[in-house]
Amino acid sequence: MIIIGELINGSRKEIAQAIGNRDADYIKQLAIQQAEAGAAFIDCNPGTSGEQEAVDMQWLVETVQEATDKPISFDSPNPEAIRRAIDVYAGEAQPMINSITLETERLEAMLPLVKQAPSNVIALAMSDEGMPSQPGQREEVARQLIDLLTDAGLEPTQIFVDVLIAPVSAEPQAGQLALQAMAAIRQYCPDCHITAGLSNISYGLPNRRLLNRVFLVMAMQAGMDSAIMDPLDEKIMAQIMAAEALLGQDEFCMKYLQTYRAGRLNR
Amino acid sequence: MIIIGELINGSRKEIAQAIGNRDADYIKQLAIQQAEAGAAFIDCNPGTSGEQEAVDMQWLVETVQEATDKPISFDSPNPEAIRRAIDVYAGEAQPMINSITLETERLEAMLPLVKQAPSNVIALAMSDEGMPSQPGQREEVARQLIDLLTDAGLEPTQIFVDVLIAPVSAEPQAGQLALQAMAAIRQYCPDCHITAGLSNISYGLPNRRLLNRVFLVMAMQAGMDSAIMDPLDEKIMAQIMAAEALLGQDEFCMKYLQTYRAGRLNR
Repeated sequence: MIIIGELINGSRKEIAQAIGNRDADYIKQLAIQQAEAGAAFIDCNPGTSGEQEAVDMQWLVETVQEATDKPISFDSPNPEAIRRAIDVYAGEAQPMINSITLETERLEAMLPLVKQAPSNVIALAMSDEGMPSQPGQREEVARQLIDLLTDAGLEPTQIFVDVLIAPVSAEPQAGQLALQAMAAIRQYCPDCHITAGLSNISYGLPNRRLLNRVFLVMAMQAGMDSAIMDPLDEKIMAQIMAAEALLGQDEFCMKYLQTYRAGRLNR
Repeated sequence: MIIIGELINGSRKEIAQAIGNRDADYIKQLAIQQAEAGAAFIDCNPGTSGEQEAVDMQWLVETVQEATDKPISFDSPNPEAIRRAIDVYAGEAQPMINSITLETERLEAMLPLVKQAPSNVIALAMSDEGMPSQPGQREEVARQLIDLLTDAGLEPTQIFVDVLIAPVSAEPQAGQLALQAMAAIRQYCPDCHITAGLSNISYGLPNRRLLNRVFLVMAMQAGMDSAIMDPLDEKIMAQIMAAEALLGQDEFCMKYLQTYRAGRLNR
């Protein structure tokens, strides 16, 4: 599993404060903690808007890359913020552009940035028609995005498809639709990555972490190999270790046993 | 999910003692607890052998049916024990015969019992060649058993297929093979039930309950709709509620919300 650590997000009150106060120590600590817990990318989302967002994104990227070698995920719908992030990014590993969609305006602004420097990209299955809601719609939009990105020169392994998960409280079939879309994309593009922000599935229900954990397992079984999540949540990390062992993705259960011996599976 | 409560099993020390001492109160209490926790069947396995097993099975069935109206699962490879259980069973709901296999000798002895009185039956995917180990073998044996049982007059809804799960510690693909078999059987016989004793998957590994819980979710996604398990384990029951909600099997998440309000989801 390729974990994109989601904690540095300005929609969280403590992070907004840390960004506002330019509290570099706080941000760096959160970057290090996530890297040590197993995050492959450190997501940075300023949570502000317009010109301020670009300034804040630049500061976040400069701050995080002083703390860890892990590549950064530039999380913003604002092309200017992404451009500034790319300009100041100094890491060796390819960063992540989070995200591109099939919406015409966003696509035209983002695509040149994706081509500007080698980078991974999260491709959200959203088009000018909005969030997909019908069966088959997610896979269709995702397929178009995959074709478009590979035509633009990206390798399948640089593409992280996010099928967009709707809350099961509003639409009972939301889980099934997302799982079917993941399975279809895994078949269409075996070398692409499939990622997701899982927590939307449980919106409006109690005990959300339980639902998120269970849905993570289902998504892994359907072909998801990446997640935008909190790597400091030891229960969900234990669930990932168990799922990898059970799906034959952890040879001789070595990783599972190591995590157990480190005392991080007893949850 | 159709839960077959597994706790009254003579291979457990306390149960062997209770059977030996004819401690009816202890057995009855365990039957009631499992029924109240959501078991649809109460499994009874004397854990003894030969003539003693038949005598013990008769006592278990008589004892459990005094405590609960839930149907009983007669768990024994011994045809004489099954025959005695059928003879004394007085419940209104159809019991479960646990189990039949494709092994010639066992099949010849068990099939007349399955036909003797209306009952459900657990069909273990095992033949004269032993435990299936190759890809596709489980589904093949299970298909033969389904054909044989429906030819014998059973409805698909009376058949509970158990694909037999091997430990993932010994065979990294064991989980995938079992899941593929479940999905294939769900397709072959949409109205059959698919059940499993889940705990074998985690044999030889630490923190087995975590692995069992995660594999349960995968199996449900693959089409399993029954499990032979401990219904008093609130963590695994919470996982089932969450999985049913996420798979669209719990309309408007009513059951999930009720379980939450009853204070049984906070694990």
